Amino acid sequence: MPKYQNLDRCKAYFELLNLPKLEISHALAENGPDRLKRYEIPLGAGLTYNYAAKAVGDSVLAKLEELAAEQELIPKYQALLNGEIMNTGENRMVLHQLARGRLGNDVRSEGRSLSEFYQKQNERVSHFAHAVQSREILGSTGKAFDTVVQIGIGGSDLGPRALYLALENYVRAGGNSPKMKAEFISNVDPDDAAAVMNRVDPETTLFVLVSKSGTTQETLTNEEFVVKKLASGPRALPAPRKHMVAVTSETSPLANSDAYLDAFFIDDYIGGRYSATSPVGGVVLSLCFGSPVFEAVLAGAHEADRAALEPAPSANAAMLDALIGLYERNVLKLPATAVLPYSQALSRFPAHLQQLDMESNGKTVNRDGGPVAYETGPLVFGEPGTNGQHSFYQLLHQGTDIVPLQFVGFRESQLHDDIEFQGSTGQQKLNANLAAQIVAFACGKEDQNPNKCFAGGRPSSLIYGDRLTPQALGALLAHFENKVMFQGFLWNLNSFDQEGVQLGKVLTKQVLGGEMPEHLRAFAELLGAAPENT
Amino acid sequence: MPKYQNLDRCKAYFELLNLPKLEISHALAENGPDRLKRYEIPLGAGLTYNYAAKAVGDSVLAKLEELAAEQELIPKYQALLNGEIMNTGENRMVLHQLARGRLGNDVRSEGRSLSEFYQKQNERVSHFAHAVQSREILGSTGKAFDTVVQIGIGGSDLGPRALYLALENYVRAGGNSPKMKAEFISNVDPDDAAAVMNRVDPETTLFVLVSKSGTTQETLTNEEFVVKKLASGPRALPAPRKHMVAVTSETSPLANSDAYLDAFFIDDYIGGRYSATSPVGGVVLSLCFGSPVFEAVLAGAHEADRAALEPAPSANAAMLDALIGLYERNVLKLPATAVLPYSQALSRFPAHLQQLDMESNGKTVNRDGGPVAYETGPLVFGEPGTNGQHSFYQLLHQGTDIVPLQFVGFRESQLHDDIEFQGSTGQQKLNANLAAQIVAFACGKEDQNPNKCFAGGRPSSLIYGDRLTPQALGALLAHFENKVMFQGFLWNLNSFDQEGVQLGKVLTKQVLGGEMPEHLRAFAELLGAAPENT
Repeated sequence: MPKYQNLDRCKAYFELLNLPKLEISHALAENGPDRLKRYEIPLGAGLTYNYAAKAVGDSVLAKLEELAAEQELIPKYQALLNGEIMNTGENRMVLHQLARGRLGNDVRSEGRSLSEFYQKQNERVSHFAHAVQSREILGSTGKAFDTVVQIGIGGSDLGPRALYLALENYVRAGGNSPKMKAEFISNVDPDDAAAVMNRVDPETTLFVLVSKSGTTQETLTNEEFVVKKLASGPRALPAPRKHMVAVTSETSPLANSDAYLDAFFIDDYIGGRYSATSPVGGVVLSLCFGSPVFEAVLAGAHEADRAALEPAPSANAAMLDALIGLYERNVLKLPATAVLPYSQALSRFPAHLQQLDMESNGKTVNRDGGPVAYETGPLVFGEPGTNGQHSFYQLLHQGTDIVPLQFVGFRESQLHDDIEFQGSTGQQKLNANLAAQIVAFACGKEDQNPNKCFAGGRPSSLIYGDRLTPQALGALLAHFENKVMFQGFLWNLNSFDQEGVQLGKVLTKQVLGGEMPEHLRAFAELLGAAPENT
Repeated sequence: MPKYQNLDRCKAYFELLNLPKLEISHALAENGPDRLKRYEIPLGAGLTYNYAAKAVGDSVLAKLEELAAEQELIPKYQALLNGEIMNTGENRMVLHQLARGRLGNDVRSEGRSLSEFYQKQNERVSHFAHAVQSREILGSTGKAFDTVVQIGIGGSDLGPRALYLALENYVRAGGNSPKMKAEFISNVDPDDAAAVMNRVDPETTLFVLVSKSGTTQETLTNEEFVVKKLASGPRALPAPRKHMVAVTSETSPLANSDAYLDAFFIDDYIGGRYSATSPVGGVVLSLCFGSPVFEAVLAGAHEADRAALEPAPSANAAMLDALIGLYERNVLKLPATAVLPYSQALSRFPAHLQQLDMESNGKTVNRDGGPVAYETGPLVFGEPGTNGQHSFYQLLHQGTDIVPLQFVGFRESQLHDDIEFQGSTGQQKLNANLAAQIVAFACGKEDQNPNKCFAGGRPSSLIYGDRLTPQALGALLAHFENKVMFQGFLWNLNSFDQEGVQLGKVLTKQVLGGEMPEHLRAFAELLGAAPENT
């Protein structure tokens, strides 16, 4: 069994603190092309992680490798794959990688192979999607379904939504159409559900209700909202829940209701923010794009999961990304990181990564409940480029703080529908901007006018590939999941629970129940949320 | 003329550093309801800024008031309103407030009253919108326009888009429909324009091309993309630009082209990120929702602009918000701030504020080109609640860093379409969550299990009102603009230029022109953006 210890028990960590810092601009100016070639790693599905513009040289990299060995990153990943209890706080295994393919032991629970269980659920999703698409399953008034509405929040929303948006254009390439279109309801704000319900035709809409516990307040409220809408008015549906499938755990209140059209199962070993490659994402993606597309996402993710088993950080993109992130956070003391995809299809991918990273590693106790005396997970935010260039990049270039960056780019567009204008295509302009930004951030520029000076020294990495295909998307997703996992191992955290969300739930109940401390009541009254205000 | 000096020339600043820090949980527990009543300020259009859960007490507030006096915040704001050159780097006045109503002198340029100029443009927008809505102006094949596509990036996209999304539901209340629907094209990624063009019917679509300079690479590329689409295929339009209006400056290449259906003008005194209340936002909002809705946004903004003239910070929400933000940034040393609207309608408002704040105050030189030796603008990010609770709030509650928060909430939903479920409405649940979060962040919770401990001490403010109306939205927008302006005065910055975006443009041109340094070429080649890769 690997040894779990805090980061500040590692010799390499203290040695890292004292190594000389690298000036990126010098490193790039001296031997840029060579550095670019040496400093990159394939991460799966044709994607490559390039870290030539990160503030690391061979001495820091060697020390990071020692740190990886001291914290036994690969043995811990293997332990996870083999079904050891990695979610210590909740006493659970962590098996989202298994949902896309097996890399360890045949993990079993209550006599059942979980690999087979996950596979079976995926098959059931595939059959269901096919039955809907072939009009074997119809709406309750006999019409074919053409719209999916996913009702879920957090991991049941952000990941699936990011993947949906990432592939919507892809499936249109060559003049094709998606099989169905999707909408999402997440917020308990009634305007969210109302807006979506105003846009869809109930007779041809299938709802996917996603809640692992079956008790999520927002999701149950939105279910009720939807059911009331479907059951009312001149075109009321006779059995609204027959337009609804549940994605939930087998023990949840939603699991065994005959009211729903069908139900697909996940279990406690796949956390919400890691569930996009389970039926949580699989149902909506398979319905809209066909199950082969979802299977390609899984295949790409599996490839990246396998690539993350490479022992040497110099050959393991997820591990090195994690190590460099730790170096930036704990040695360079930079508190945030921006994810900047140069691909409009990835418009909501940063919001997903924000949850993935901040909910996993935004912790102050270690996996055994002990204190940590160093910085853990950074702030994560981002928007697609080139849009961000015309927005917050000003601060990234010339602000008083340095923010490490993670760029993502593709050589080709998804639709291959482009024009040449002023001597270049849109895709070339997009990528010329991306290359230019990497160099501008790293190298800066001197100028006699101080307002036009750029200090440079802003580190960035680049994940790139030919095209944002379903495989590439799956690999990209899994890369970041595995990066976050390795960082959790480095910081000795449990990256798989989220106790920080509990207190708000308790206090919300107090407000709605009418029994609360005076200062909470005062805030609730400002907002008309205390029961007296009903 | 007010005196411009760096923050670290102010006596009050150094005194602030040495004042005892307030424990929010104690302050709220001791006299919460009283503190809530005392610590709030109307900000215009029925909105209130409450700072009871911020880490400030009367002694810090008194010192912040001294700082406001030392930095002459009100005289500087008045100087701005009166047309002094506040955008020092570009030698320009700063007049976005004038676009919504006059509060200072009759500012003139080249013999012309700019108040009258802005008003005249607004009237032209209103007439145009009415002519389109009344079918006096039709598409080139004789059909009525039902869709608006805004083509713009940065300030020509984020603000207008945020406002559009914020009001789309509002105008549907009572079963009404928007007059037209809007789509947005911003990214130079060809997939962005292609996706939108796949969704709209060219014959009934009006394009709004927004670029102040008329030279924005992304926007011109997207114009070309759209024009080619409109001019091709079996349903090619005879004169595609007759489906297009320009919003630009009078001196731009777009201004005097007869090719466009019409053109509306802005000038150099309204910066991109401050232009949502000019025709940049006005055309799309007036077309979709009617000009009275846009005028109500302007009226609300004007009200907030007027409220920001109050001399005492305790009566001036924008100024106090700025001062407390400075206290958090420079005294408490907190590098980021999150904007968390409990309103799905404000889903893209944080992205707009991110530009507004980070592009305005992410600077390291002062307004005169001298250095600053203190932190300036923070990182700004955010997503709507309750969604964020299920995502990144984990880190906000239990991460190793403290992130100050700005909540926004409304007593009523926009659509008034809500259900009671388990004893409360959706809106009550939404606001119960909001109240609960404020208290959870401020007060925390002790627990024997360290993993379930919440340290508390996380400061937040709350802007609240009855309902997100156009007036309230305008006031909210202007509040943040004025907050950012006051912070710029405090830090002695020019908040109205953006030199940090220039270097990337220069290097992009090098890539596309084929002449570039070796290391830039190496990155461009990875991405297929160097001309050899064509």
